[in-house]
Amino acid sequence: MGNRLLDEFAYEYKHLLEAELRKLVDRLEAPPIIKKAMHYSLDAGGKRIRPLLLFATLAAFGIDPKKGLLAAAAVEMIHTYSLIHDDLPSMDDDDYRRGKLTNHKVFGEATAILAGDALLTYSFEVLGMIPNEAGSSDTKLKLMVEFAKAGGAEGMVGGQVADMEGENKELSIEELEYIHIHKTGKLLGFSVHAGALLAHAEEDQLENLRAFAHHLGLAFQIQDDILDLEGNPELLGKPVGSDASNHKSTYPQLLTMDGAKKALHHHIDESKRYLKRTGLNTSLLIEITDLVASRDH
Amino acid sequence: MGNRLLDEFAYEYKHLLEAELRKLVDRLEAPPIIKKAMHYSLDAGGKRIRPLLLFATLAAFGIDPKKGLLAAAAVEMIHTYSLIHDDLPSMDDDDYRRGKLTNHKVFGEATAILAGDALLTYSFEVLGMIPNEAGSSDTKLKLMVEFAKAGGAEGMVGGQVADMEGENKELSIEELEYIHIHKTGKLLGFSVHAGALLAHAEEDQLENLRAFAHHLGLAFQIQDDILDLEGNPELLGKPVGSDASNHKSTYPQLLTMDGAKKALHHHIDESKRYLKRTGLNTSLLIEITDLVASRDH
Repeated sequence: MGNRLLDEFAYEYKHLLEAELRKLVDRLEAPPIIKKAMHYSLDAGGKRIRPLLLFATLAAFGIDPKKGLLAAAAVEMIHTYSLIHDDLPSMDDDDYRRGKLTNHKVFGEATAILAGDALLTYSFEVLGMIPNEAGSSDTKLKLMVEFAKAGGAEGMVGGQVADMEGENKELSIEELEYIHIHKTGKLLGFSVHAGALLAHAEEDQLENLRAFAHHLGLAFQIQDDILDLEGNPELLGKPVGSDASNHKSTYPQLLTMDGAKKALHHHIDESKRYLKRTGLNTSLLIEITDLVASRDH
Repeated sequence: MGNRLLDEFAYEYKHLLEAELRKLVDRLEAPPIIKKAMHYSLDAGGKRIRPLLLFATLAAFGIDPKKGLLAAAAVEMIHTYSLIHDDLPSMDDDDYRRGKLTNHKVFGEATAILAGDALLTYSFEVLGMIPNEAGSSDTKLKLMVEFAKAGGAEGMVGGQVADMEGENKELSIEELEYIHIHKTGKLLGFSVHAGALLAHAEEDQLENLRAFAHHLGLAFQIQDDILDLEGNPELLGKPVGSDASNHKSTYPQLLTMDGAKKALHHHIDESKRYLKRTGLNTSLLIEITDLVASRDH
């Protein structure tokens, strides 16, 4: 892509994050097999888009992104748990993710479920580890409650339930948006919100960043649906057209491919409009937004 | 049993707890099916031993047990999630619990996994709801971190992993204790610890209560193993001898039935010895301890 600023930033902070994730799991006094299963899925790579959003939000406030390292690790852990559980035979029944065998294909279903449970539980403990210099008790408590809301029945889990219920049905665009706002959007929103809370953002900045994350989340999902039809299966690490074969509704199906691309650009434009209104130095967040619109995997 | 004091106390606080659990799930803005699945397992009854321990610990300090209502609800939620996941086909594969169909038999595996995930996630949010009069931000933060440790890879999840790994193997008594201290003991310990933290216990009281809970947890599990062989299947809601048919090591198997009963009484005596050392009014906690030793289901 040649986005110099973001490339360097992403390179540096992905490495820091991945080292932190390894360290956090290594220090657990737990049966080796569960730590191995946790490491396996945390190490599986990916874009680390949620941690990057958190780091870039801190940078927008002129604050050292390292202050967000533990919060970013918690977000990546809850995201990883959700992938492990979503891939299970009784859910999406996926054998591969990002070209690697899914957790349950390597460790068996029981260990995969428990590795997910352990990551989810640990993510809260990790938020609690944030040092006082980076976040007061009040801030940490607020983070944990927002995190639970974003991840639970009113957030990501609720979105996954709605997604399952929507299979084999003709959904309206509102129903499809409900799914994505909850399944993907809430946690992307939390990532931005967590950065803003750690930066002591003002109320109007929080509002604008919330709107930014909302539109970014929808753009992210629309691009996901577009890639499922037009993407390169080698880069995606999964076959093209898997949504259709899983009987999932998608934006291109409801809006036509042309309509989906228009919707994508609408949400990208809205994202940037709200970023501008924060009055912050949002160059990294803008680059992340462009990356979401143009990513190939 | 005729334990007048505990009978009345348990009656009152079980009702309060169950009403609170219903209210907490009702207020969620989430797809109806996930709320139904959460309610189903929370409503399945049981002894509510963890909440009762928390309430009775507050009472020992002369503090209104109602101050512990949200913490007790959180503990019962995390316990309930663990039962839902443990019962899954890939884990213990149980069709009945307490005489009722297990969650996945009613709602299907995918919804059962997600109902467990939602309960686990919500339990942290519920701890965060504790009003400031009952617990400061620092206390709540400490509760959440202790809760995550008790529930996660270093606690309950680690115990479940060790339990699975121990199937079809001849375990040593140390290995068996590792399983039970983690799988059951950590959360029982948290229940007592949470009551003590909300009561601003002093360090030596915390230590004695920790030792009390440790021995109570082991007594609880030994009695569980004894009941599995000598209990009444109608009261238990499951067939007798299910541990053996699931190829699980038990105390009677490792110690003989006589040895297991001796160990039970040793741990009950130790529990009471540590209770006495707190210098608190522990009559309710003593009655709970006796109940653990003599319970028939």
